[in-house]
Amino acid sequence: MDYGKKFQDAIDALHREGRYRVFADLKRQRGNYPHAYHVDTHGASDITVWCSNDYLGMSQHPVVTNAMHEAIDLVGAGSGGTRNISGTTHYHVELEAELADLHGKPAALLFTSAFVANDATLSTIQQLIPGIVLFSDEKNHASMIAGIRHGGGMKHIWRHNDITDLEAQLAQYPKETPKLIAFESVYSMDGHIAPISAICDLAEKYGAMTYLDEVHAVGLYGPRGGGIAERDGVMNRVDIINGTLAKGFGVMGGYIAASRVICDAIRSYAAGFIFTTSLAPAIAAGALASIRHLKSSKVEREHMHERSATLKRRLADEGFPVMENPSHIVPVMVGDPVHCKAVTDALLNHYGVYVQPINYPTVPRGTERIRLTPGPTHTDAHMDHLVASLRELWQRCPVAKGEYVRLAAE
Amino acid sequence: MDYGKKFQDAIDALHREGRYRVFADLKRQRGNYPHAYHVDTHGASDITVWCSNDYLGMSQHPVVTNAMHEAIDLVGAGSGGTRNISGTTHYHVELEAELADLHGKPAALLFTSAFVANDATLSTIQQLIPGIVLFSDEKNHASMIAGIRHGGGMKHIWRHNDITDLEAQLAQYPKETPKLIAFESVYSMDGHIAPISAICDLAEKYGAMTYLDEVHAVGLYGPRGGGIAERDGVMNRVDIINGTLAKGFGVMGGYIAASRVICDAIRSYAAGFIFTTSLAPAIAAGALASIRHLKSSKVEREHMHERSATLKRRLADEGFPVMENPSHIVPVMVGDPVHCKAVTDALLNHYGVYVQPINYPTVPRGTERIRLTPGPTHTDAHMDHLVASLRELWQRCPVAKGEYVRLAAE
Ligand SMILES: Cc1ncc(COP(=O)(O)O)c(C=O)c1O
Ligand SMILES: Cc1ncc(COP(=O)(O)O)c(C=O)c1O
Repeated sequence: MDYGKKFQDAIDALHREGRYRVFADLKRQRGNYPHAYHVDTHGASDITVWCSNDYLGMSQHPVVTNAMHEAIDLVGAGSGGTRNISGTTHYHVELEAELADLHGKPAALLFTSAFVANDATLSTIQQLIPGIVLFSDEKNHASMIAGIRHGGGMKHIWRHNDITDLEAQLAQYPKETPKLIAFESVYSMDGHIAPISAICDLAEKYGAMTYLDEVHAVGLYGPRGGGIAERDGVMNRVDIINGTLAKGFGVMGGYIAASRVICDAIRSYAAGFIFTTSLAPAIAAGALASIRHLKSSKVEREHMHERSATLKRRLADEGFPVMENPSHIVPVMVGDPVHCKAVTDALLNHYGVYVQPINYPTVPRGTERIRLTPGPTHTDAHMDHLVASLRELWQRCPVAKGEYVRLAAE
Repeated sequence: MDYGKKFQDAIDALHREGRYRVFADLKRQRGNYPHAYHVDTHGASDITVWCSNDYLGMSQHPVVTNAMHEAIDLVGAGSGGTRNISGTTHYHVELEAELADLHGKPAALLFTSAFVANDATLSTIQQLIPGIVLFSDEKNHASMIAGIRHGGGMKHIWRHNDITDLEAQLAQYPKETPKLIAFESVYSMDGHIAPISAICDLAEKYGAMTYLDEVHAVGLYGPRGGGIAERDGVMNRVDIINGTLAKGFGVMGGYIAASRVICDAIRSYAAGFIFTTSLAPAIAAGALASIRHLKSSKVEREHMHERSATLKRRLADEGFPVMENPSHIVPVMVGDPVHCKAVTDALLNHYGVYVQPINYPTVPRGTERIRLTPGPTHTDAHMDHLVASLRELWQRCPVAKGEYVRLAAE
């Protein structure tokens, strides 16, 4: 049995499709973000990062880094155990309380990532409520898809953000059938925002639970950074809110916030929660400081939203196929994986602009794009350089601008 | 639909079985490990931790904490992205090279935990090699079970460490059928060690790949801390080695080490690798420093093994039902969840000795136990106190010692 060949075949398929991924090796410079060094065989070159999900630059904020330093000095590096076996530190306890408060819920539960939080929670719910039927938005993130699939129960996929389709699917079942609607607030690759309130109306009408992934919204929306549900005043209508500590909050880790009994049941039954070392105390401490800071400080998110609006306007003014959306995400449609990689390679190597090409399986084939995430530290000068670089590339490149505008407008 | 009741029912079942888990809230004191504070409603009390998987106390080692401080100062808190989208820092690249070298493999791949590494790798292999049959040791960890199940392929469970049974199961299939044998080196709850070489013989004979979880061995065994496979001189015979950065190495995160093509294929296809924020740079930096240190420094592991042997001898001399095994783990059989929790509660509250009760689903029902993990920082005085506390408790407790000795000897 030639196992090597089987793995090689899988890789060859990616090369053939032009979507083999090469990771850019980066060295950030703290205090100098969005600048970083790009390390390759030629050495290290100075670049500007335009595709980070450290949306507010909180990874560089002294309240966060100081909290991490302090925790390392006080308790050391790793927690040394699963949550149950010596791995619950006081930082974990405080962080869960802080997250519960952020979302106006009685409890919260930490995971090593929001991926694991989605996977573990959605699969365990199906185990605890046999026969529950899941209704999943078709654009849901891979981590929710994993959890839904791993639970092994019945599922229906509803058309993206389409509450008419959702209702039609819910209405197929008697009210007594247990149901769960799983969706996101900000869809990170398109920047769409879900009609949370309308979805909660349907959940009430048809007796469904609601599960909302606010990964790309926490820290960024709402008066205290509680996300779109906070902004829309509907946190209390959502049963389970999922979030990350790795994007707006700038550290790492994930969580759910929900009722006490839901968190307790997931805590007690989810393998992905139970059988893994807890987050390092310094990570929990950094996240705690970040959340506390963003609960009262609005400048970071206001500045980020201004930067995002400015970049969208500037790109649209120049006729770039910016995909319209009501969020902070700035996707520019390319529509082909090879072309997408050619554009971003040129940006990186000739212009010092780092934007990763977004291709399948992150987005559907044929909708390959570049995805820009301006933050508070991207200056007008950074933007001038980005727009000029894109303009030059777009002029030189064989695929005409108009074609992409059409694609994006579909 | 009363969803709350469904979750409550699941929790009530745990209470009825006496295995509802209460997490001890701990505050370590760096430099003073194994001492820590236990925080509860009465305040904080000084305790000695006897159940951490920070086996070598590396979470407290200055080479590790200094490396973390330095990384935070240089690059900040979180990586800000998935590995593909701006989340590959130079620390990740260096750490993967260091892990490959540690295991004598051409490549390695980082995950946010060894749980995720097992889950993602074992499920993705089944997707990449359709029809592959998995052979899983019956005592395999929950994370391997998750990965095997999530792959959805055919599987067989073989009797724990029983190569006769493994062979009988392998022999049912033609040699051309793709196969994978999944097992651990050190089984963490019993302390058993797998006959790696004999398993590799069978793998060769029947044309199977081998997948070895060295989570409880890396850093602890082998001349450079490469694990049991290094100690036994068989690293080159194992196709995929899985390990953690959270136990012997004292930080957090997990990985696989394997051929270049295997790592590349998993990197390219595994959702649990692709769709999640990469480890925080400071975590990667701390792990890197820890591995490098333990590659050349033997004192930590030698000291730990001496402490473990000493504690086993002392407990056995006093007639405690220590479960015999050839590893560093010191399990003491109790055999009942309620009794197990009563013993450990008394240890914590009256003797300042923290040992978590180990109950189902971590071990099979009826084999509940306490599990002691002595490390380099547990002094003779700590041991005197532990043994004296256990002696007092065992004398006072209604379930006679003899009964447990019998159970343990089975
Ligand atoms: C055998 C085994 N494999 C994997 C894991 C998971 O490791 P991690 O804590 O890095 O997720 C554990 C325990 O946590 C384990 O005992
Ligand atoms: C919608 C969504 N949910 C969950 C995740 C996973 O979050 P984490 O990086 O904390 O695993 C991501 C991206 O990483 C995401 O985009």
